Amino acid sequence: MKDVISSLYDSKMAALKAKIDAEKFDVKLTIVTVGDDPASKVYVRNKIRLFDELGLPCEHITLDEAGTTQADLDVLAANADHPMLFQLPLPNGLVAPDLPAAVDVDGFGSETLGQLVLGNNVVLPCTVQAVIDIIDNHYGENHFAGLKVAVLGRSNIVGKPLAIELINRQSTVSSFNSRSDLAAVDWTQFDVIVVATGFHGTLDNSQFVEGQLIIDVGINRIDGKLVGDVKHHEDVVSAAAITPVPGGVGRLTCLHVLGNAIKLCEMKQR
Amino acid sequence: MKDVISSLYDSKMAALKAKIDAEKFDVKLTIVTVGDDPASKVYVRNKIRLFDELGLPCEHITLDEAGTTQADLDVLAANADHPMLFQLPLPNGLVAPDLPAAVDVDGFGSETLGQLVLGNNVVLPCTVQAVIDIIDNHYGENHFAGLKVAVLGRSNIVGKPLAIELINRQSTVSSFNSRSDLAAVDWTQFDVIVVATGFHGTLDNSQFVEGQLIIDVGINRIDGKLVGDVKHHEDVVSAAAITPVPGGVGRLTCLHVLGNAIKLCEMKQR
Repeated sequence: MKDVISSLYDSKMAALKAKIDAEKFDVKLTIVTVGDDPASKVYVRNKIRLFDELGLPCEHITLDEAGTTQADLDVLAANADHPMLFQLPLPNGLVAPDLPAAVDVDGFGSETLGQLVLGNNVVLPCTVQAVIDIIDNHYGENHFAGLKVAVLGRSNIVGKPLAIELINRQSTVSSFNSRSDLAAVDWTQFDVIVVATGFHGTLDNSQFVEGQLIIDVGINRIDGKLVGDVKHHEDVVSAAAITPVPGGVGRLTCLHVLGNAIKLCEMKQR
Repeated sequence: MKDVISSLYDSKMAALKAKIDAEKFDVKLTIVTVGDDPASKVYVRNKIRLFDELGLPCEHITLDEAGTTQADLDVLAANADHPMLFQLPLPNGLVAPDLPAAVDVDGFGSETLGQLVLGNNVVLPCTVQAVIDIIDNHYGENHFAGLKVAVLGRSNIVGKPLAIELINRQSTVSSFNSRSDLAAVDWTQFDVIVVATGFHGTLDNSQFVEGQLIIDVGINRIDGKLVGDVKHHEDVVSAAAITPVPGGVGRLTCLHVLGNAIKLCEMKQR
């Protein structure tokens, strides 16, 4: 699957570049960070690098952990006139402001999510878009309807919006969470299983069968090594297609910060 | 089940009455209708009667089908300062304005739905609240987590918001739609099956087993008779608890226009 993801990345990237060249969008992004969470630094650097590569402006507002108040963030959000994101996690109980859909490049805001439920055209959270891309690439755009998809995890930024988007696309969706009896589930009944629980070992590679697509959203650090939510027994060769970690969903996710910024600019210009 | 629903209605009604008496809420509702759809007339009359019974003001704005524009509806919505609803269906391609959450008594608006996805405190669409009440009454408030619920239908006003609310409550939710292969599903695996497809005969009473709760949301008129989405074979005695039509979900739904109006007033006063 690593090669599949890699060529999917390349084709998506080429399509975004072509769009920027053809349409001359005024694409601009503002990233707000508070404090210096080390993981955030990596994520933010990757986003800035992507914009740099394409010669697009990406403003980075860095706020000190000490002294930054919720009101400071709210003022930034209220004045946003182009795509903006608040890099999570935020320290000191600060919460990301609820950005209006027009500038909500992460797709986490209530306005974006409300329009999503209604089936209207909005950006999807970047991870959700990456999962949709992988399913689309595997089965084809017209094959979401009737597809049996299991979604493990019900976070506001992945599991829930993914389930809603799949329902919009007429998939048959089963949503599982930490209170579900996972051991009693026959996992072979699903065409696609998306694991987004944040727990390594939620499922393992012995549980899948040929023809299934397993999308591992998790990024966990265990003994200094990055692993997904799916555990890979070394003595098991799974017949299913399983996205790798790293080099799977995460690789595509970063691209969609750019894709969403472009989409918001497109929607503004219409 | 008819008796169960009936006593549930009575206890919910008593609770709402007690709340109004105790809290002295300034509860007021405005219902907007356009034209004279006969089914709408019955629904609106029931809502007005309920408010009348409790001595609460319910304003009814009736607009002519000829001459009413989308702009007319939008102006009414923009000036709403207390709970309002636009009775569906609207004629001539008119669409219900997207009411702000503070006055959205039907719970159909994008702001309400976005807050619902985020798990924040909002009113639920009245039919969704009725379904939640019936499950709650059957299994208990603390038994949503881990409950296996099938939701058939993915409308914006029932299926989708119900699935989201159940996911919020940590149920294991399976969402089916017209593209799902219903014949291949083992229905006995679910604790609760909610049928909200709008098609009589989507499932039938021979498909359920003891211990299951079947909630029939459908209201269809066949040969002059009101029937649900579940077909009842006369020679089959189902061991499952199946809500009747009429006298089931619909009976509770009307009550929640009042319940939601009270909740919006409560939220405003806080």
